[in-house]
Amino acid sequence: MRPKIYLFGDSITEESFGDGGWGASLAHHFSRTVDVVLRGYSGYNTRWALKVLERAFPGCDDGGEAPLAVTVFFGANDASLPDRYSAFQHVPLDEYKQNLRSIVSFLKKQWPTTRILLITPPPIDEDGRLQFPYVENPLNQPERTNEAAGAFAKACVAVARESGLPVIDLWTKMQQFPGWQKDHLRDGLHLTPRGNRLVFEKVVAKLRDEGLSLERLPVDLPLLADIDPNDPLKSFQK
Amino acid sequence: MRPKIYLFGDSITEESFGDGGWGASLAHHFSRTVDVVLRGYSGYNTRWALKVLERAFPGCDDGGEAPLAVTVFFGANDASLPDRYSAFQHVPLDEYKQNLRSIVSFLKKQWPTTRILLITPPPIDEDGRLQFPYVENPLNQPERTNEAAGAFAKACVAVARESGLPVIDLWTKMQQFPGWQKDHLRDGLHLTPRGNRLVFEKVVAKLRDEGLSLERLPVDLPLLADIDPNDPLKSFQK
Repeated sequence: MRPKIYLFGDSITEESFGDGGWGASLAHHFSRTVDVVLRGYSGYNTRWALKVLERAFPGCDDGGEAPLAVTVFFGANDASLPDRYSAFQHVPLDEYKQNLRSIVSFLKKQWPTTRILLITPPPIDEDGRLQFPYVENPLNQPERTNEAAGAFAKACVAVARESGLPVIDLWTKMQQFPGWQKDHLRDGLHLTPRGNRLVFEKVVAKLRDEGLSLERLPVDLPLLADIDPNDPLKSFQK
Repeated sequence: MRPKIYLFGDSITEESFGDGGWGASLAHHFSRTVDVVLRGYSGYNTRWALKVLERAFPGCDDGGEAPLAVTVFFGANDASLPDRYSAFQHVPLDEYKQNLRSIVSFLKKQWPTTRILLITPPPIDEDGRLQFPYVENPLNQPERTNEAAGAFAKACVAVARESGLPVIDLWTKMQQFPGWQKDHLRDGLHLTPRGNRLVFEKVVAKLRDEGLSLERLPVDLPLLADIDPNDPLKSFQK
């Protein structure tokens, strides 16, 4: 049975199989070794994520096989400001940390061997948010700020550290690239192909640190290069 | 439990989660409704595919839930000419038909309700094959021809007709686009982003004919647009 990696998160996960998306790249990278399974829910914060865990990961209680890994990529919506138009998605910082801990603890309880990889929200390009608001924005103030996203990113890193989990500090990593605002983000929040590439590369590197790499995972069925042209069927004997 | 669509085939399936790939586009299209599961095996013909069915689709015998659909996309390797450098991948036309029937019958027996969608091999641009051979090609003759691919495509359509299955005649459809040789194929055989787009659109249309469309499939968990901003948690009551 081919093992699975689940991608659990908000819209940045849900749209990760679009053109150049980090989820599709991951599925392509692991095309003969792992099933990459999409569990992205646009607009969701950790409060809502907690409510749907059993439904997003059925089989947990049914003795379903443990996945190799789960990426947990929330915070962009939690960090919506409480006094702007996305206020209904906002979650207070302390609750965000507690929710992340609860998500991790649910996953660990169900699947003790599964690697859990936390990913912080990306930085926010406030100018981009003003140019591409979701809905009419008469206040003309961004509904998310980079400062708020940074506070949630730090909280995510803190939860990872205290739980001994790997984490990708996307908020910090992305800002190391000059021009990240337009190069890595298409609307101040969601990823461009270059932003997707960054996430893909960081996820592959972290999974490798956890022992999950193409070199170490078994290939599903014989590779063409290993099939003897003079006796191909030999490779398919069970 | 989110339902599945399996993509079963050769390299044109295995690489379908690459940039602009038809598999990734399908996963993106169905991002909240269906898990699109990759079962592509580079270089495989129907003879080898038959040998690995139980391993490619474990769970069949274990009472695994029936997928919504399986795409069966073989023939490009079967159609390799028997006297050129890919001869070891060649399968005679009659055996190809019989193998396709056996694959269909295996799937139907395991999962009587699952839609099986056959896809013919694409046309071959012989000039592209000469420019991008897999291995040294001292004969300087293409290892595949468009004529041979066409014969296998017709055989695939015939098997679909006799079995009452939907089929995408990719060999014919692609050649209706002037310039298909370089526009739709990158090496005379594998798909460009435009070729991938064509396959994606045809698969979505055929699945829709079978009743499998975004309009008819249930969405996994509440959509953001359906969540009441004044009482978001109402949407998450079970």
